[in-house]
Amino acid sequence: MSAKDRLIYLPLGGAGEIGMNCYVYGYGPAGKERLIVVDLGVTFPDMDTTPGVDLIMADTTWLQENAGRIDAIFITHAHEDHIGALGLLWHLLKAPVYARAFTGAIAKLKMEEKGQPLDAIRVVKPRPETIEAGPFRVQFVPVSHSIPESSALVIDTPAGRIVHSGDFKLDGTPIVGEPFDPEEWHAIAREGNGVKVLACDSTNVFSPHPGRSEVTLAGPLSELIAAQQGMVVATTFASNVARLKTLAEAGRAAGRSVCMLGRAMKKMITAAVETGVLTDFPAIIQPEEAVEVPRGNLMLIVTGSQGERRAASAALSRGKYLGLEMKEGDTFLFSSKTIPGNERGVIRIMNAYSEIGVDVIDDRGGLYHVSGHANRPDLEAVHDLLNPKILLPMHGEHRHLREHCNIAISKGIAAELATNGSVVDLTGNEPEVVEYIEAGRTYLDGTVLIGAMDGVVRDRIRMALNGHVLVTLILDEEDQPLGEAWVETMGLPERTGNGAALIELLEVDLDEYLGNAADKVLRDDGKIEEAMKRIVRQVAMEAVGKKPEVTVVTSRLVAD
Amino acid sequence: MSAKDRLIYLPLGGAGEIGMNCYVYGYGPAGKERLIVVDLGVTFPDMDTTPGVDLIMADTTWLQENAGRIDAIFITHAHEDHIGALGLLWHLLKAPVYARAFTGAIAKLKMEEKGQPLDAIRVVKPRPETIEAGPFRVQFVPVSHSIPESSALVIDTPAGRIVHSGDFKLDGTPIVGEPFDPEEWHAIAREGNGVKVLACDSTNVFSPHPGRSEVTLAGPLSELIAAQQGMVVATTFASNVARLKTLAEAGRAAGRSVCMLGRAMKKMITAAVETGVLTDFPAIIQPEEAVEVPRGNLMLIVTGSQGERRAASAALSRGKYLGLEMKEGDTFLFSSKTIPGNERGVIRIMNAYSEIGVDVIDDRGGLYHVSGHANRPDLEAVHDLLNPKILLPMHGEHRHLREHCNIAISKGIAAELATNGSVVDLTGNEPEVVEYIEAGRTYLDGTVLIGAMDGVVRDRIRMALNGHVLVTLILDEEDQPLGEAWVETMGLPERTGNGAALIELLEVDLDEYLGNAADKVLRDDGKIEEAMKRIVRQVAMEAVGKKPEVTVVTSRLVAD
Repeated sequence: MSAKDRLIYLPLGGAGEIGMNCYVYGYGPAGKERLIVVDLGVTFPDMDTTPGVDLIMADTTWLQENAGRIDAIFITHAHEDHIGALGLLWHLLKAPVYARAFTGAIAKLKMEEKGQPLDAIRVVKPRPETIEAGPFRVQFVPVSHSIPESSALVIDTPAGRIVHSGDFKLDGTPIVGEPFDPEEWHAIAREGNGVKVLACDSTNVFSPHPGRSEVTLAGPLSELIAAQQGMVVATTFASNVARLKTLAEAGRAAGRSVCMLGRAMKKMITAAVETGVLTDFPAIIQPEEAVEVPRGNLMLIVTGSQGERRAASAALSRGKYLGLEMKEGDTFLFSSKTIPGNERGVIRIMNAYSEIGVDVIDDRGGLYHVSGHANRPDLEAVHDLLNPKILLPMHGEHRHLREHCNIAISKGIAAELATNGSVVDLTGNEPEVVEYIEAGRTYLDGTVLIGAMDGVVRDRIRMALNGHVLVTLILDEEDQPLGEAWVETMGLPERTGNGAALIELLEVDLDEYLGNAADKVLRDDGKIEEAMKRIVRQVAMEAVGKKPEVTVVTSRLVAD
Repeated sequence: MSAKDRLIYLPLGGAGEIGMNCYVYGYGPAGKERLIVVDLGVTFPDMDTTPGVDLIMADTTWLQENAGRIDAIFITHAHEDHIGALGLLWHLLKAPVYARAFTGAIAKLKMEEKGQPLDAIRVVKPRPETIEAGPFRVQFVPVSHSIPESSALVIDTPAGRIVHSGDFKLDGTPIVGEPFDPEEWHAIAREGNGVKVLACDSTNVFSPHPGRSEVTLAGPLSELIAAQQGMVVATTFASNVARLKTLAEAGRAAGRSVCMLGRAMKKMITAAVETGVLTDFPAIIQPEEAVEVPRGNLMLIVTGSQGERRAASAALSRGKYLGLEMKEGDTFLFSSKTIPGNERGVIRIMNAYSEIGVDVIDDRGGLYHVSGHANRPDLEAVHDLLNPKILLPMHGEHRHLREHCNIAISKGIAAELATNGSVVDLTGNEPEVVEYIEAGRTYLDGTVLIGAMDGVVRDRIRMALNGHVLVTLILDEEDQPLGEAWVETMGLPERTGNGAALIELLEVDLDEYLGNAADKVLRDDGKIEEAMKRIVRQVAMEAVGKKPEVTVVTSRLVAD
């Protein structure tokens, strides 16, 4: 380690939100560090802030500018908020991508979808296998989570050892995937100089009780399913392969044939089977077989636990789907939690089922779902186990990161609340924010990547709130209005409270303005358009109480 | 009671949602019943389904068509979902409005705001005072809720007694307002032939434990506030006068000066004091005095418990508000629950406070808020107390109404899940749905009332999701294009993934089309516009992956 070298941490996504994880570590002379990237995830749009957007991911402008310094990309696990942007962003970074077998299989699907080279994906085994990436030596450490083969990373650098937790919980009996192994973590903490930095999942820092194991669900789910008379339909996160197995086994134990609906689920099961993660999944039947099974002997496992309009759960709430239909006396089970912000969608489905006469069971009692993230006491246990000098809370909103920092500081661990864009120098004994870089968001909008600040989405929100008025005006060769201004509206009431036609009110005032406009105004497109916009907004405000967006198109006839 | 007379119930809002309550009862010959209306409430818009809308209320078309048959409007209490549409809709119905003093005071404010006559409001006393309205004799019965003077209605008709519960809980110690009085309810059940119909609040039917009293909060709130070092800011629903009092008293007991921020709160306190409901509210100071008070001796009570962007809670999270500012070490308390759908807004404020270093305390522990609605065991207690022949569950989503019906049926009470628009005949011993009327929603959009199905909001949602393309084309006196088509876009990416300009791609294809278009197409505005729309959508889909909304304006020059 040269005196001028430094070790840095730079979150680009995930530090200040739960979603779009993307973390950078660097080592080397300041501004010339060699870099590794951990995770390239997405987050999901909503109508409030990102109408019409398809996916949201970290802004990689800084990484692109420094692409030549990137030695590797590591993907900790195959959840969308960690892997979802890989196919969309890889061509901008072009570094080798390391992942374990199951994650690698999903990574290849992501790359294939976007026409990216599959050989960029390097499948690796867990520790002790070690990836050399510039000055970094990286090992994957199995952790338990709600998807198979989730991993923490042990990142050795000349300035010390970093443990990047990824998403994890402490589960000794996770059904599918590796159990939490305290021995392994003890070893990681004891080797060499121990752990300098722990970058740690903060999702459940506000959950006060120790987390529960996946295995605790088997009993309650089996009892519940066995007790039902009609068809049982259960939903959970598509990637929760352990839960899918528990649900399917509970169904089979209750003498039911099990059928799975939803592409995302099938993709995950296939990848899990092909990579050897899943070896003894119960037999399942196809929808065309399921339609022949008496409903009391049938169980469906379906996508759409968050109320997604296009998923199987929503399709079934609207009527027949692949020949299958829910009826009065059937049961629908959410073996999942509702992610904040998705409440309306989930409630919409619950009410749609209520209208059919289907009993809906959700996780209010805590019997049918456990979280995949470490709760507060579990986080404290990991702090104690790894005994890091520095804690970097990640994978959380600001309030989660702050709480996690406070826990660490109360135990004498140095902690830094570094949000997206903070460059943190980790070389010394105390973390220090040395720089802030622009760290915004990139949207996949249709098939195009746009910046969150490009104004495209802002304009869509404005049209949604205010409506849109179009004014067209033709001016003749002498710059005089040819006929009258023509107005069209979209997303505005046709008539005022008094019954007057809004378009007519607008046209009358525009024509009055044009009739009196000075010649020099009429010769100036900018001035006419500005004046007409002002008039439209003013008249609309008086007439219907809204200030619409306005587009004015002025056409001029030119003398031949 | 003539053999041809019938008693009917017709919910127009509130039966199938929590919000925009509006219930109609009728008595008389079929189709000629005299009518009373109970409540005229609003519900609130969201970006997902109602962008740009200001308020949502029941569609009163049917009531307007039958306005001559309406003998009275009764308002049970002054929550927005029961009274919010009064000023907006009264001029369409024009019947006398009966309410108790506090509710009447708020009703007058609503009428005044919209220029409606204040003398339409008739302030009445609770039972035994009786309002004669056509064939109905109506009494207000005090119930406990989260606003002063909430009332149930006892509605006597020639066909029997109806109890319309309004919003209520069973609280013997509600701090402000009348306690639950089982003796009174016993009397109501015993008089005459007892209760034929109970139309009953269903909000908390899924809450399994008996509800807690408002008085249980005083201890925990006092302890919490006394324990804080910095400024304490608490928020709750503006109309929860009892909570405001408890909070203010806890602040005063901790030696703090108390200041209230937010117009809605002041309006409620003023009405409560002026109508004698509130007699001993602690002294409060004004913001200009509060700025002089050391922060450890200050408590603010503010509006915005649902994360509303314009409320005091949000303003304080963004910086200085009325000279007051939150700082590191201060505490912000949500003495409220987050209504489903408002999670994002509340979490946004929590994170904004976290960034300032303010500790946020919410009601996760159940210590600092109690609900204003009867829980499942409380509902069952009321069923037992009133012993109705028929239960009509109201004030709930479909799933709440269904659950409430199931409870009643399991006890041998006839129940009907009647959603908005169902006309229920209550004349016999079993309720019977005899008709469905159109029962939609009306939007206040700016200053205009529009129908939910008018297409205005649909167009706004489409523009928000897909963007908007404008095409203008001028055709000369011979119906030939004069120059080229001109394209403008709003809410669409400027460039494709390959860097091509979207507008240019659109113009090239449109011009190619126009160059080849047959004369008979060029003479037909409809045909040209249809073709150009198709081209724009197709080209945009290929270029940027979105199918935008398209407006085409064709102008034709006419020979002089």
